[in-house]
This record gives sequence, structure tokens and C-alpha cells, in this order.
Amino acid sequence: MAETVIKHDGRDYTEDQLYYLTNGIKDYQIVHGSHLKGVQFETASSVPSRPAGASMLPTLFPRSSFQEACELQQAFNELYMRVASDPEWLYSTLEPLMDHDDLFTTLWEICAKVRDAGVVQHTVCAIFRSDYMLHQTPNDEEVSLKQVEMNTFSCAGACHADRIAAMHHHLAKVKAPEASPNMGLSKNTKVIVNLLKAAYETYEAAATSGRANCVLMTVQPFNFNIADERPIDVVYHRAGYEIEEYDEPGKETRLRLEMSRAIKCPDILTHLTGFKSVQQALTQSGAVERCLPPDKAAMVRRTFMPMQILDTTIPGLEARKTALDPKRAANYVLKPNLEGGGHNIYRSNIAGFLSSRPREEWHKYVLVRLIEPPPSTGTIMMPEALYHGAVVSELGVLGTCLWQRRSRAGSEVEIKQNKIAGWTFKTKPMGIDEMSVVKGYGVFDCPLLVD
Amino acid sequence: MAETVIKHDGRDYTEDQLYYLTNGIKDYQIVHGSHLKGVQFETASSVPSRPAGASMLPTLFPRSSFQEACELQQAFNELYMRVASDPEWLYSTLEPLMDHDDLFTTLWEICAKVRDAGVVQHTVCAIFRSDYMLHQTPNDEEVSLKQVEMNTFSCAGACHADRIAAMHHHLAKVKAPEASPNMGLSKNTKVIVNLLKAAYETYEAAATSGRANCVLMTVQPFNFNIADERPIDVVYHRAGYEIEEYDEPGKETRLRLEMSRAIKCPDILTHLTGFKSVQQALTQSGAVERCLPPDKAAMVRRTFMPMQILDTTIPGLEARKTALDPKRAANYVLKPNLEGGGHNIYRSNIAGFLSSRPREEWHKYVLVRLIEPPPSTGTIMMPEALYHGAVVSELGVLGTCLWQRRSRAGSEVEIKQNKIAGWTFKTKPMGIDEMSVVKGYGVFDCPLLVD
Repeated sequence: MAETVIKHDGRDYTEDQLYYLTNGIKDYQIVHGSHLKGVQFETASSVPSRPAGASMLPTLFPRSSFQEACELQQAFNELYMRVASDPEWLYSTLEPLMDHDDLFTTLWEICAKVRDAGVVQHTVCAIFRSDYMLHQTPNDEEVSLKQVEMNTFSCAGACHADRIAAMHHHLAKVKAPEASPNMGLSKNTKVIVNLLKAAYETYEAAATSGRANCVLMTVQPFNFNIADERPIDVVYHRAGYEIEEYDEPGKETRLRLEMSRAIKCPDILTHLTGFKSVQQALTQSGAVERCLPPDKAAMVRRTFMPMQILDTTIPGLEARKTALDPKRAANYVLKPNLEGGGHNIYRSNIAGFLSSRPREEWHKYVLVRLIEPPPSTGTIMMPEALYHGAVVSELGVLGTCLWQRRSRAGSEVEIKQNKIAGWTFKTKPMGIDEMSVVKGYGVFDCPLLVD
Repeated sequence: MAETVIKHDGRDYTEDQLYYLTNGIKDYQIVHGSHLKGVQFETASSVPSRPAGASMLPTLFPRSSFQEACELQQAFNELYMRVASDPEWLYSTLEPLMDHDDLFTTLWEICAKVRDAGVVQHTVCAIFRSDYMLHQTPNDEEVSLKQVEMNTFSCAGACHADRIAAMHHHLAKVKAPEASPNMGLSKNTKVIVNLLKAAYETYEAAATSGRANCVLMTVQPFNFNIADERPIDVVYHRAGYEIEEYDEPGKETRLRLEMSRAIKCPDILTHLTGFKSVQQALTQSGAVERCLPPDKAAMVRRTFMPMQILDTTIPGLEARKTALDPKRAANYVLKPNLEGGGHNIYRSNIAGFLSSRPREEWHKYVLVRLIEPPPSTGTIMMPEALYHGAVVSELGVLGTCLWQRRSRAGSEVEIKQNKIAGWTFKTKPMGIDEMSVVKGYGVFDCPLLVD
């Protein structure tokens, strides 16, 4: 009998079975565009690509937590639609960043110019992705679902997630029937395209000129993650999230887009809700409750980890003490007000990092209690090797929104679409802090739900 | 105004337009699996891929020749179904190869064993691809369509052709509206899958046991052209066309497959019809006419180029003289009895090649009058560079067949399916003799039909 190499979900897999499975995955990824573009090797006529990291077998995830995340999405969608329609609250929340955060300052200046010129388009659409991890400290009896962050601009991973889910369904049919994902396919791409279609139709219905309309998608010129964008054909932003993009022509372009009659996906106010300071402000007493009915607000609030801006309020000064003490900081991560991963400072590194920055900049940073994921085992294909062992998964739920602002101040909004699109699921070896498949830190995965 | 870099189909293209177009093509190819697997760089957990060569703009091709090739397909399908059901004629045609061609000898031995054991499955299915080029000598007033070869086993390029046609339709919508292909999409993949489904249903209807049936596809273990195979899920052979595959376990496996009750796609007799000696024998007076009604036979015969086996008959000896004289051989190619490209000897190289081989082996070779393609201009992306200039295109038409043999001898067959599946279209720079996209000698293309 062939020797068992690994056990997954209580089943044995031999070396031959794993070889057969990895070959199937490699081929599936080429044929279905589950690849990253090798931009550094691009020539005029050709460009190679390599597979995005993928799980070999779906990683176990509690069904109740998965369902909770899905149920939360419409509440989170609504919360952020309301926050993104309340410029005064947003400004009071973000104002301390002025002069200390170039991206915020740039975006706010554009915001102010648009407001002064008069907003010509009150309908906004957005694609949100709320990311979660499981949390359980030694004192907790039960696992709970905690929000890592809310992505409100240029959400990635939707198309890749669809492909990986479809791949695991296919593999289960032809190669590993015992590892069949016990859930439907992910439909992110379809729902996102439908949102853009709904925005297009809204625009067309309101258009007074007889001119043909179109959907404009902004992209970065040398991005390697094209397979996540190209399957989606309103202004849809997949660029503009890094300060380097806002040189003078960049600012001018964004201003023109914002001042145009186009329905933005999303507009600049919604873009601003992605700042960590907003996430932190929402954890403050009454902030969520102002926007949502009590039952929804309570459900949302349960997913918040404790977090505090390093400002000069009493809790802010207390948080600074925690941050500067490597022992007390062992359960914390320091997050700057930047979207996406790769900028966080972890645990005992926080003190040294802060000491190197001028004290007046400290309120750019949010100190967040680290989520402690319970033990889980995964079998994944990292770019450099196969990995079987302790893993951490991150579940993202995508939502699509279309709404109309009814007043300039306050959160009076008419919600025209509030949907859950689908999910993304990423898994990385335990011990790696960053989670970014496209940078090689983890893999795209599909959850195997367990009761 | 931007400067014109190239002219294609009478239209000007600037450097910016070409850059925009090549970027679109590179991204489309990644997302849609129009890639070749980099097997030489494969590791346990990852394997890179690179784009299959593709045309930037559809290459012009006469509409009448394209239509003629499509109209020919059912006649060619029928011709080869009949020939593949006539083992006596096949043996008399191929017998001179015995002891001189290892692949033929191996296949014929398997054939004989199957015949002696008693054939248990009289239904056969096949995917044929008839390849054509345009021909016009300085003396010809009109362009004519000439057959390069008939592929009867393991036909490649069907899925890639579908993708490239779909790509040019997509690009015409979003990037280069003036270069819109004026024909429908290619449906090779769908029609091939439907053939396999029809064969499966035929098998199931005749099955006496209650066991579940399946479709088995044979593939080479380290093939880089997986994107052409994987989209297709009856034994379907995409391997077994090289002598190296027929070691003892290889022979044993093919014999077991042939002796089984499975409907083969195709069976070994049909495999044998792909030998060049069969193509040459069909050019002989009466050979086509024996299998097809006069009008169809005449239509088929018009596409034949003169060809002669280097045997010891009077025409064979005459052909040997031509082959050995570098001047007279300038319009000829020498083809061995092997499937696929890469083994041909051209023009003045023929004499030297033949001199290096024992004379008793010469009747393994067929001397074929070279097709002289009329001038055409193409704009293509070769792996190493963009190319704009003189090109040669090769049109392949794919057919799907399902038939039942009624008698062991003679060509009594009941045809159950005789369809045209779609087309492949490949273009290479003029002056390159070989045509193989996957080896980097040309590109997958889509014809732009002209009247």
C-alpha cells in the first residue's frame, strides 16, 4: 500500500495523490487565468506569468462563522454608505491627519474643490470587502469572528476567489472527490459586473444628452495582478490608492473624474472611509449606533477588536504607553492610515519604529489588539514550496452598493442596491504576519465548512 | 499627429495604438489561458507559463478559399472514414514501410493482434484536421487552395484557435474597432466535446452491464501545451504519436486500449491513415474516386499537390532523380512518414539528407511539390519580437466523425456523425519553413476574409 504523506480533514493522502493533485492545479491555473503577470520580464511582444498561490485542499472553517460574516455584509454595507454620505463626521474624524498624511491631504483638497464647485452627481456606487479572522484567546470558550479591516476602494481578489472556488469544485469532481467543497461557487465577478451595469443604467436613465455612455476603469500601468481586473469591463477604480500616483497630472485627473457627472465606483468621500482612523472612530461608543438600528449595530460591534489612535487624548496617551513597552505590545499591531497590507508594524517592533518618527506624527497610527486565530491545519502551494502545517485563514466578504445622497450634510441616503457579492478566502502559514497572495505570503483558498 | 508605424488592411496604426493593442493581447492571453506551460521551469509547487504566439491584427485571407475549405471538410471526413475502414487497402499502401518504420511496424503489430483476437467495438470516432495553404505560381491567374496534410490522430490547436478568435472579437470591441473579424467565433472546443458526448451516449446505449462509464483521455506526462487539451473532458488520444512512447509498457497499454470495448478517438486503423504514404496513395488515379461520388472526389482532388513516394516504381525512380538534383529539388519538400511538423527536409538539403540514409529506407519518404503562397502582409507577436511584414498563413479545418464499420473488409460504413467543428489559422513570417506555434515558429491568428 502507498504510504500516507499527509492527513487533511481526517483523510490520508499519498505522495502519488498529492502529485496528481498539484499537477491538476498547475494546469487548471494556466487554462483559467489564475496567474500573475511577470511584469519584470515583459518584452514588447511577450510576457510570462506564474500561478497565484493556491490551496491544494480546501481549509476547514466553522460554518457558523462563515454564515455570520455573510449576514454581517449588508449591515456593513449600510454603515459605510451612511458614513460616506456624512462629510462633516468624516472631516472631524480625519482632520487630525491633515498636514501629516499626504494621501489624506491630497484627497481632502480634491474633496473641497468638488464641494465648492457643486457636486453634480449624487448617485454613488461602491464595492466593499470586509475582512475577518477567527479569534480565540486561552480564556475564550468559543471562537469569534473579528474584523481585520474594511476595504472601500479598489477591492482586490474577487475574480481570483471565483476561480479558486471553481477549481476546487472541478478537482473534487475529477481528482479528489473526498475533498469536495460543501458550498456553492463564488459569484463575485458576476455580481460586480451587475453593479456596474446597474450604475450604467441609472446614469443612462438620468442622462439628458443623446450621447453614448461608457464604463471607464482606471488601472495602474504596470500592475501584475491583471487577472483580477480584466474580467470586469461606471468609473471603476483599480488605481489611485498610493500617494505616488498623485503627482500633478494625477491630482488633476482625479479632480476631473470627481467633478464629472460620472457615477464613481466609488467617489472620493467613500474612498476616505477606508482610512484606519475611520475604522477606529467607528469602534467609539455611539458611532455605529448613529447609523444602524440597534440589532444590526450590536452585530457589527461584536466583530470589532479594541483599537486606539495614538493621539493626545487620555486613551491615546495610554495606548502610547502600551505601544512603547515591548512586553505590553506583544499582543498589538500598529497600523498606519494606508490601504492594503505591507505597512503594519508588529509587537516588539512598534516601540523602535515609533521612536524613529516625530511625535507629532504619531496620531497617524492606530494601535490594534492582535487577533489570535485558533489552531488550523492547511495544505497549500506556496510559490516556493508545498506547505502542510499550521495555517491562518482570512475570510473576506464582498458587497455591492448603489445609493443616492439626499442631503449634503447628515446621513440621509436612499439605498438602491445593498447586496452580498461573494467571498474571498486566503490562507497563509502560521507565523507570517502579512497576508498578501499576490506578494507571495499566502494562497487563494476555498473554505470547507465544518459544524 | 501621431506618426504611422505600420499599415494593415489599408489602415494606419501609430506606435501608441500598437502598444495599447499588444498590452491588451498580453493581458487577454493570461486571463484566458492562451499560454504554454514552462515545463522546463516546473517545481513541485509552481510552474510559469508564457503566451502562445498571437497575431496583433487578423491576417487577410480570401473568403472564397475559406469557404471552399469549409465545404471540403465533410468530403474529407467521409474519405478518411472510408479509408480507415478498409484494412486491406491500408495494409497494401503501408506494407512497404514494414521493417523500415518503427512506428508503423509497432502500430501494425498491435492492429494484427486486435484483428486476431476479434474486434469487439465497431463504432469509431475521430477528430480530423485538414490543413491548407494558398498556392499561386507566376503562371497561375488565380489563387488556389492546396492541402498540406490531413491530421487524423491527436489533432492540436482547436482550443487555442477558439481563444484567439474570441480575443480578436474582444479587441475589435474595445481597442481596434477597424480590425473587427468579419466572421463568427470558432467553436472547436464545443463541437469536439459534443462528439465525445455522442460517442459516450452511443457506448452507453449499447452497454449491457450496469457499470458507470467514463471518458478516458490519454496525455503525455510533460507536455507544455496543456491549455489546448484541458478544456476537453471516449478514449481521446492526445499522446501516442511518437515512437518513444511505445516502449514495452507503452505497447501493452495501447494494445489493451485497442482490444477494449471502448469507442476509440480514434482507433489504430484511423491512426494509420495519417501516414504520408496514405496521403500520397490517395493522389493516385482512382483512389479518391473509389470512396466518394464524382463531384466530391473532384473537389477533393483539386486540393492535392503532386507527390511521389521514393520507391522503385518508374515514377518513384523519376522522383529520386529530382530529389537528388539540388536545382530540380528547389520546389520540393521531402516528408517522412511521421505525424506533425519538424521532420521535413527542404529543397537543396534533400540530396545531402538522402545520401546519408540507406537506399532501402528511401521509400519511407514522400517527395512533395512545395506550395507557393501568394504575397500577404501580417502583424504578429512572435515570442521574441513584434513582426510586421511578409507572412504565410495556414488554414486548418476541423471535422468530427462517428461511424460504424459494417464489414471487416471493404469500405462499408454507416456514418453517424460527419460535421465541421471549426477552424484553426496560423501565420508565420515568410521564409520560415516550419509551421508550429507551440515551438515558436508562428502565431495563432484569425482570418480577415476579403472578397
